[in-house]
This record gives sequence, structure tokens and C-alpha cells, in this order.
Amino acid sequence: MGANTFGNNFSLTTFGESHGVAIGGVIDGCPSGLLIDFNMIEKELQRRKTGLNSAMSQRKESDEVIFLSGIFEGKTLGTPIAFMVKNEDAKSADYESIKDVYRPSHADFTYQQKYGLRDYRGGGRSSARTLLPCVVAGAIAKQILQQHNIEIHSFVTQIGEERSPAFSNEDILSILNKVKKEKDTVGAAVRVEIDNLPAGVGEPYFRKLQAVLAQAMFSINAVKGFEYGEGFHAASMRGSECNDTFVNIDGKIRTKTNHSGGIQGGISNGEKVYFNVAFKPIPTIMQSQNTVDVNGNEIVYEVEGRHDVCVVPRVLPVVEAMTAIAILDFCPLICTSQHEKY
Amino acid sequence: MGANTFGNNFSLTTFGESHGVAIGGVIDGCPSGLLIDFNMIEKELQRRKTGLNSAMSQRKESDEVIFLSGIFEGKTLGTPIAFMVKNEDAKSADYESIKDVYRPSHADFTYQQKYGLRDYRGGGRSSARTLLPCVVAGAIAKQILQQHNIEIHSFVTQIGEERSPAFSNEDILSILNKVKKEKDTVGAAVRVEIDNLPAGVGEPYFRKLQAVLAQAMFSINAVKGFEYGEGFHAASMRGSECNDTFVNIDGKIRTKTNHSGGIQGGISNGEKVYFNVAFKPIPTIMQSQNTVDVNGNEIVYEVEGRHDVCVVPRVLPVVEAMTAIAILDFCPLICTSQHEKY
Amino acid sequence: MGANTFGNNFSLTTFGESHGVAIGGVIDGCPSGLLIDFNMIEKELQRRKTGLNSAMSQRKESDEVIFLSGIFEGKTLGTPIAFMVKNEDAKSADYESIKDVYRPSHADFTYQQKYGLRDYRGGGRSSARTLLPCVVAGAIAKQILQQHNIEIHSFVTQIGEERSPAFSNEDILSILNKVKKEKDTVGAAVRVEIDNLPAGVGEPYFRKLQAVLAQAMFSINAVKGFEYGEGFHAASMRGSECNDTFVNIDGKIRTKTNHSGGIQGGISNGEKVYFNVAFKPIPTIMQSQNTVDVNGNEIVYEVEGRHDVCVVPRVLPVVEAMTAIAILDFCPLICTSQHEKY
Amino acid sequence: MGANTFGNNFSLTTFGESHGVAIGGVIDGCPSGLLIDFNMIEKELQRRKTGLNSAMSQRKESDEVIFLSGIFEGKTLGTPIAFMVKNEDAKSADYESIKDVYRPSHADFTYQQKYGLRDYRGGGRSSARTLLPCVVAGAIAKQILQQHNIEIHSFVTQIGEERSPAFSNEDILSILNKVKKEKDTVGAAVRVEIDNLPAGVGEPYFRKLQAVLAQAMFSINAVKGFEYGEGFHAASMRGSECNDTFVNIDGKIRTKTNHSGGIQGGISNGEKVYFNVAFKPIPTIMQSQNTVDVNGNEIVYEVEGRHDVCVVPRVLPVVEAMTAIAILDFCPLICTSQHEKY
Repeated sequence: MGANTFGNNFSLTTFGESHGVAIGGVIDGCPSGLLIDFNMIEKELQRRKTGLNSAMSQRKESDEVIFLSGIFEGKTLGTPIAFMVKNEDAKSADYESIKDVYRPSHADFTYQQKYGLRDYRGGGRSSARTLLPCVVAGAIAKQILQQHNIEIHSFVTQIGEERSPAFSNEDILSILNKVKKEKDTVGAAVRVEIDNLPAGVGEPYFRKLQAVLAQAMFSINAVKGFEYGEGFHAASMRGSECNDTFVNIDGKIRTKTNHSGGIQGGISNGEKVYFNVAFKPIPTIMQSQNTVDVNGNEIVYEVEGRHDVCVVPRVLPVVEAMTAIAILDFCPLICTSQHEKY
Repeated sequence: MGANTFGNNFSLTTFGESHGVAIGGVIDGCPSGLLIDFNMIEKELQRRKTGLNSAMSQRKESDEVIFLSGIFEGKTLGTPIAFMVKNEDAKSADYESIKDVYRPSHADFTYQQKYGLRDYRGGGRSSARTLLPCVVAGAIAKQILQQHNIEIHSFVTQIGEERSPAFSNEDILSILNKVKKEKDTVGAAVRVEIDNLPAGVGEPYFRKLQAVLAQAMFSINAVKGFEYGEGFHAASMRGSECNDTFVNIDGKIRTKTNHSGGIQGGISNGEKVYFNVAFKPIPTIMQSQNTVDVNGNEIVYEVEGRHDVCVVPRVLPVVEAMTAIAILDFCPLICTSQHEKY
Repeated sequence: MGANTFGNNFSLTTFGESHGVAIGGVIDGCPSGLLIDFNMIEKELQRRKTGLNSAMSQRKESDEVIFLSGIFEGKTLGTPIAFMVKNEDAKSADYESIKDVYRPSHADFTYQQKYGLRDYRGGGRSSARTLLPCVVAGAIAKQILQQHNIEIHSFVTQIGEERSPAFSNEDILSILNKVKKEKDTVGAAVRVEIDNLPAGVGEPYFRKLQAVLAQAMFSINAVKGFEYGEGFHAASMRGSECNDTFVNIDGKIRTKTNHSGGIQGGISNGEKVYFNVAFKPIPTIMQSQNTVDVNGNEIVYEVEGRHDVCVVPRVLPVVEAMTAIAILDFCPLICTSQHEKY
Repeated sequence: MGANTFGNNFSLTTFGESHGVAIGGVIDGCPSGLLIDFNMIEKELQRRKTGLNSAMSQRKESDEVIFLSGIFEGKTLGTPIAFMVKNEDAKSADYESIKDVYRPSHADFTYQQKYGLRDYRGGGRSSARTLLPCVVAGAIAKQILQQHNIEIHSFVTQIGEERSPAFSNEDILSILNKVKKEKDTVGAAVRVEIDNLPAGVGEPYFRKLQAVLAQAMFSINAVKGFEYGEGFHAASMRGSECNDTFVNIDGKIRTKTNHSGGIQGGISNGEKVYFNVAFKPIPTIMQSQNTVDVNGNEIVYEVEGRHDVCVVPRVLPVVEAMTAIAILDFCPLICTSQHEKY
């Protein structure tokens, strides 16, 4: 499978550079007969686009999704759903100054090493903007999962040194504005919860539910850590405190606690699935930094313009989208077109 | 791709239940003409098998690897390398008592939910023993990587509340014996380092180097967390402290620091790649636990016999093996048979 | 892998219905640094579009290819190359009359059975127009193969009862006009030759060179048969006449004859690779036919307008394109970006 | 996916050289809870092994299948089913004489070109014996399909110049003995029929039902041609005679004729699926042949011992097996374990 495709049953292939003609994707394996809720897709894109205005970058993109195929009279055909978003305000001239710069902790250097050339405009393929197609496909995946009552939610739980079970947007804005004044950026952590996932979803061995969720999360730019259930804390625990004992509650087998994060042996057990994702600070900071250019000359690099100071809250719909795609891909019976009997 | 296959260029398909006839694997994509070092494979298996005797379980398996195909006169043919290890002392009668028990934090319940039946003997497919084929394939992958000077090392860095940059076996033994006396088990964390991986290895987007390493690690039983570079700590950091600035050292572009863990944009940058893996405590403890049976009756479950109290140090060769397989799979040119020109 | 993706190293994912917004594709795995010859792509599309005017259908599409990603300053980036062609003159109203008809030997009925709905306009996803993206990707594959001196040619060898080693366009036109006058359509056969493919390309067992070429050819609409080397004639032969004996010609090992079609054991032997492909007559004929509608009512179905009477010669660039993609996919070393060393 | 794996939902990975330790396979994706009929597997293997004694080669193999995993108390677990057959009477010394010979129309030369070495004993990986694992997996696939009333049959329709709708074993024996006396071998053709495949099975575009069946057939040694429905004859036909018109028979939509071979647009239409497969003569003949050795020296090559003179009838269970695996792989709902709800 190509490096730009995720999933087997419900698969997404993405394409696009930040300042190329367009970014987009192709969904293969979407069941037929689904009445697409385009408003909901638009809302998810708005969540990713707007963020919290003052602390967010202000690229003026209409970000209108154009569906190219796979939908007829509002319903999915079962054939590939291709879609794109045009990159409207790309001015290559704006990027002449960084053409030859290896920006610290960006992918300029590694792309150049791998490919021998790169689209230097706005980060090219490694730009966070390229995650937009995941949000579109994830929105469709969410719609399918919701028909089966499966819900995915995410919460900001950490921004720099500040921690909370679930920051409000106001809280986030306040912290980010402080960081912004200091001309710096900051890391963050996010908690994701999947509700009503029935027991028995996932695969043993190399496609454990947690393994595919981890791959999905590490596909997102800036992710540095993933843990589920007790996660890294489990390393400090004793078996006697970490084990989830089974109980019979009104005829249904449940676990008394949920240190396992809803997964045992790679397969869901019917409890809430939850995991945490850690993000590094955005590497573009409003301070001068030492670096080298493509010829190896040591230079001082400075940026202008407006840039995000943190991936949250804009990354939340991306995290949820990749979670939805990963979960749906584990459900071949849901992915199958309604009229198929075999 | 099936749930029991990992990799595209150098792929491993595993099979086997803990107390079935045999466990084993099939490697597809191993380059031809490689003179296999069978002693080195044996040493890796010994590392996994023996552990630290007194605190380790004592299943008497010879664990001899029988190669079934793909090797002729000591050299790889370029065709599939199948191998197996027989399960010698499987006595099903020993497992009658747990036949109907859903052991806490084991996969008994989830397998039953997914498949409607399970091989209850010794955990069946979810037993840690089933990781043995990964060690065999990983040993071969290591041999290939070593020809290119790429080295993989792992260290125990945490056992329960105790932390160290790299525990010695004596340290580990001492901690584990203490836990054992308390009839409990304990979690652990491991650090992995990949040396001399050249810049340019990895893929952008869904097959980022870190994404595939994460999938590989979460394929290993009991893993609850994975982080690379600064990992979860990055969530607390500012961009100004987390960024790795580039420097020119004797004509070679390097980073001054390595918060990134040797990966930027999903592709190696030539610095040391490092990551941490967290493991939960082994769920089998020498204490009575409440649970339910397959009929939903609440029961008290107790185990006898000898059992490991922690996944370390036996899991180290497994962690290194899966790392080696994942890295090699990213290197199609190394995987190609020497005589191929296209 | 999804049903709309072909290839592992150089892969093509296609999308689009005949009268949707656009048809197109995403190429993943194209090596970086390739200077694309856009004129050559255009020429291949013209071959498919124009055919032989008087006997060909006259849909007025500009068929301009718009590249959306993966190309920067004329060179490939190594990232996904997405492209599309808009469907310009789609008038759904024109298709109201066939909305409820199961046209004989078309895919209307089977799509309806599988998906429960279909885009009935112009055949939707099953239209021959949807092969256009293969021509684009194949043109790029050809350019890469040509750098290695590998050439692909195809010839019309049969139209209905008429056979020839290689019909000229004039011959073809003459035959097709005759069929057209009879308000009928006609089948055809095509021979493909691959020159200068070095020995050693292909894989044993399930991905034999001939197996993947066959899959590629049967992906093309209307293909009913595939044979390579002596093909079906081999069933009539004796071993003593069919065997290709080896000879040493100026220090190079060659075969004296080439009944094998350049492939032995699934791997190329350095001789010319050749195969034949048979096509059924186009099912849309200018005669009234009995059929049923979606409600099972028996009806008489008649078509108007202009329609092709045979897949040749327009299918030739499609056949060559799929051949090129299949061959290139077997060559991981060619597919790898030039700067990659592993 | 590796070159030795076929299928996505019900996948088979094979391994083994003719004279290595063992040949075998791993089935991944077999649904759980299936009570395996081992006698039926044995019967299929007997069909492949015995053939028609006097004209068949007499390798004395017990060919006992040893199941290594995935089956517990006679039922499938849903986990990988690994199996092997030991290669009992391999005497490498017998093959010293062909060690350096490139046998005409065998794969010795191409393997050497690709891999730089080969297991020369009995053809190694390219031996017809390596098809045995397909028969085992195919027998299991057949059992699953039979539960859904889907039946697969095959018939010998041509041996050399002789043709018949379905030769009896006696007929075959008579023809083959004649060829044997002439110290030659002969080609053959086989017809396969799939009964009761419901409408709607298959995929459009690159995974058309016919495309995957073709790939499956060309995976079998010595296959030179594949055609379905009217096949190559369709090239001679007019649309007005080749089209299958729809009729309503007792409320069920059927086609009046079946020139299409039960497939339209890559998807089954509920009619009988049928196709023909052509085989070249076995290249090992009892006559002296000119060839070259690995050093390029021209030599005369002669064989002794007993060898088959034709692939039929022994290849029939192989053809049926690969058909069954291909069909089952298209049926994700059948492949899913019975207890899965998503």
C-alpha cells in the first residue's frame, strides 16, 4: 500500500502540497446509499479552520470542498469519493526567502535528503494544511459510525505546563495569548474517547486496535506520544492495581475499572476506549534562530507574518477524524454496501 | 493485508497458539544470497527465553527453530522463509480449570466476543509466547541492517516506581524478586535507540517512520504507550526550547540538539532515533481475584505455578526485533535481491 | 488494497463517473526529480480520444488534464500526483430515458445488485471514459520506462472475422464503416509487445509477471481473453515443439525460439514479452433489443446518437498504459527516488 | 503485499521449495467456528497426487498435511491456519546432474537472473509440487462456499489436438499414453464453472471478478491463456449476437443467453460463471535437447526417470482451489467470523 493511503476496508488516499493547485483525497470503500450530511462536513472543517481567532494564523482560504465523484443525487454510490480543496492564495514569491533555508525542526532537510528536491512553499507536503482531507474523510466516517451510535470526542488536557481534564476555549485562548506575547509556541496534549464501541472490534497481533489507532495518530504532524488506558503510568503500577476485574451488571459482562482503556488483546471489550496524544510545540517561532541553508552555510533565520502558537484547538477535528477512519476500517460489515449479501 | 502480517517490502506473517502444534512465521521479501548466522538467531531467542531465571517462568521448551523453506546451503533464496517452533509440553488438562474463566485483563473475554470460541490453553493466540516468531524474523532483519552498519539497542529504564537510564540485570533481578515476594507483578518502560540510520529513511503522511514504529511496538503484548524524541514531555515545552537547530559540523549538516528523536516530517534526519515504550504489569498475579466465567457467574480466580512478574528483561529482544523489521521494511533497496537491477 | 487501486510500488488509484464532476487519479510512488513531458501525455490522450473519426463517438470533451499535486516547477516531487479531467458536457436529462433500463450486456444490472443504486448517466463508473486516468498514469510510466530503454507497442490484429498481423488505420476504418452501416458493433483483438525488458523482472508464485499483466488487462472494459507466448495454441502443442532451447549468442544466453513469450516461471528472460488481448463487441448497438427495466418489466430498448462500433483503435493507448503501469510496478529500483540510498 | 500472498479477506501465503524441508501455507481471514472436514481436504490432495497412474510421475510422498495452528478441537479459531507437508524423499544427489543446467522452458535461468542463486533440486520454488498448499487452502475455501451453495467444477476440454466438452479419465489416459510412447509431452485446456454465485459479487475497476480470477489462474504453473464467457471468440462476434438480453423468468431477472460468462462490469450477474484455461506442454521431455549451462556452454540435456506428460488431470484440483480462494476473497461477509457484528 502506498505511503499516502490509510485503511483497507474504508481507505483514504490523500494528495496535495500546501501551495500546489489543490489538496484532497480519495475515499475507497464507503458503503453505498449513504445520504451525505454536507453541513456536518463543513462544520468539521470550520472547527479546524477557525480555531481561536486571535491566536490562530489567518490564511484566507475559502476551503470549499468540491466533491468530484462517488456521490449521486446526494447519496454515496459505493464507488471512490474523490474531493479537493483549492489552494487559493498561494503566492510563491512570498516563499523566496525560505527557498534555501532548512528551518529548525521542520521537514525541509529530510524531504531534501529523501527526494533531492522539495516544494518549499509553506512546507509543501509536510504542511499542517495537508491534514484537511483527513477531516473530510473523517466527517464521513463519523456519520457512518453515528448510525451505529459510536461517538468520538476529544478534549484539550494540557498546554505547556498547564493541565486540566478538559480546557474550555476561553482557557485555551488565555494561555495561548500569553505564549504569543512571549513570541513563542507551546506543546499540548489531547484526550480522545470513543463511546459505545461494541466488544469484539479490533484484530489480534499486528493490527491490534491500539496499534492502528497509534499509527493513525502518528500520521498527524507534531504528534510525539500516544498512550491508551493507563498508558505510561502503567509502567509504575502493580498488577493488583492495574488489572480490570470482570463483573456481571444486570446480565452484561463489564469491567469494574477501566485501566485497560477498553481494549484487551487488541480487541475492544465494550468499555469506553480512551487514549492521550502529545504534540510538540509548533516549530515556527517569532524569534531569530540559527540554522543552515541548503549549501551548508550557517545563517540566522527569522519569520514574519502570523502563525499559530499551538496545535490546539485546531487539531481536535483532525484527531477525531483519524480516530473515526481507523475505527470504521475495523468494521467490514459496516463498510459493506447495504445490498451486498456476501 | 491480513491482521497477522507486518510489512510490505520485508514482511512477516506469524501464526500459532501457545499450546497448539507449533508457532512460527513466514518472511517474504528477504533478499537472496544472505548467509544466515543461525547462532545469532539462537542467541536472540535465548535472551527472550531465559530472562533472569528466578523471577521468570520456567516453561520447559527447547524452542528449537526449524526452518522449512527459503534457505539453501545456508543462504537465503529470495523465496519465503518459513520457520516454526514446536510447542512441546502442552498439556491441555492443565488448563481445564481456566477453560470457562475470563481472567482479569487478559484477552479471554474479547476473543470470545469476536470469535465465539477460543483456545483457552495458556492464552492461545494472545500468549506472549506467540511473539517468538518476531524474534526470529527480527534477528534476520538485524543481520541485514548490520551489513549497513545500522544498530538497534534497548535498555530497561523503569520498573514500577524505580527509574534509571539503564538498569543492569542485577538491578532488575533485585527489584523483581521483591515484587515476587509480594505475590504481585509490575509494569516497566524500555528505551530503544537506532544508531547510524542514514537521513532520508521513512515516508511522509500515513507511513511516517514514527507511525510504523508505533504500530510495531503496539503489536507487542502489554504495551500501553509509545513516545519518540521528547515524547509526552514535548507537551510541556516551548518551541524555543524544543526546536533542533541545524549546524554544519565538518561539512555535514547535523542538529545541535535531538529533541526530535532523529525524525522530522516522518523521515529520518541522520541523528540517533530513540523512543520509549511503556508496558503494563503482567495480569497474571499470585493473588485471588474476582471475575466472571463464560456464563456470567461471578467467581474467585486463583492461579498456581510459576509466572513472570514483569515483561522485562525478556521483552527486550522482542522490542528490538520489531524495530528491526519496521526499519528494514522502509528500505526497499536493501530488501531487493542483489542481482536485481530494476 | 481498495478495488480502485492498482500496484504497490508505482500505484494508481482512480475515481470518477462518466457524467460526474470529474474523473481522475492519484499516482503514488512516482520517483522524484522526473521532468514530466506533458506533450507526450497529451498525445496519448489524443490517441484515445480521436480514434478514427467517422466510426468513433463524438463526445465533445476538451479532456484537459489538470494536475493537482506532486509536480513542482515541472518536476515530480515524489509525493502523490493527483490529476483530473472535468466532465464538461454532461446533460443528465439526456439519460432520463435509460434511467430505469437494464441495458443488455452493460453493467447497469450488476451495479444495481451490488450497490442498490447507480449513476445511470452514460454508464457511470463502468463507462469506457473512466479508463482515461489509466492513460495519464500510463504515459508517465512509459516515460520512466523509456529512460531505461523499455518500449511498449500494441497492434490491432483482429476485427470481427478479419485478421492481420497489424492492421493499418485505413484498414480498420474500412472494416468499421462496414459494420457501422449494418447498425452493429464488432469485437477485436490486440497484440502487445514489450521490448528490452531485461531478464529477472517479475515475481514467482502469485505475482508472476503474466498474472499481473492479466489482471491489468482484465481491468479494461470489454476484455474477454488474455494469452501470452503461444497462449491457447500451446494447448495443442507438444513439448518438443513448444520448448524454447537456450543458446549462447556472442556470450549472451538467449532462447532460440520464443514460444514462452519472454517469461519463464513468472520472471522475464530477456526476450520480447508479447501477449494478445480479446475484446467483445461494444454492447450499445443501433438496433432495438429486448430487455427488462428495474421493475422487471420486459421492454424494448433502442438507442440514438453516435456510438463507437469497436473498442479499437481507441483502446490501444489504454492497453499500453496498463502494460506500462504493471511493468513499472515490478521495478522497485526504478520507482525509488534518485536520492534514496536504502 | 508479498509476492507469495493471494487475497485480502481470505488470504493465503505459501512457502516451500520442492526439495526443501517442507512446503505449506498460512491462511489468514478464515472465519471462526468452522468445523473442518479433513477427509475432504485429503480427497482433494489425492486428486492432485494420483492423477492417472501410468501416465503420471511416481514421486513417493505421503503428502500428509500437518496443521500447525488456527484449529482447536476441530474448529477454526479465526486465527491464522498454518499447515505444512514434509518433503520426504528429497535426495539432493539425484539432482547433481542438473545443478548447472538451464533446462529449456523451465525457470532455472530466470531465477538465477533474478536471485543470483537457486535451489536447483526438482525445480525448487518453481516446481508444480509447490501448488499443493493451494489445494489445501482451496479445499477449506470450498467448504465455506458450499455452505452457501456455491459450487465449483472443472473439466478437461482439450489435450493437444483432441477436443471434447469433457473428457473422461479413460479418454485422457488413452491420449496421454500415446504421447508418452512418443517420449513427448502435450498441452491441454480446462473449463471451469461456478454455479450459484449470486449477483453482486465482484468489484468494479481494478478488482473486477474476471481480473482476479485471471490472476489466480496465471499463478498456476504452465498456464498460458485465460478467457471467460465467449473469450477469444468474442473478437469475431457482432454486438447483436454477443449481447445477453435480459428476461424476467418467474419474477427473477435473468439473461436469455450467457455470452458474458456470468460477469458484467466486473460483477457477477447471477448466471453461471465459466472460463477456460490453457496450459502449455510440460517442458520436461524424454528426448535430448540442446541448451546451455550456467557458464554459457552449449550442452545436450537428457532426462531419465518418470515424468508427467501433461498437467491434466492432476491440475484440476489446483484450478478449482484457486478459483475457490479467489471467489471467497470477494465475499467479506462470508469471511467474517460469525460472532462479529461490525
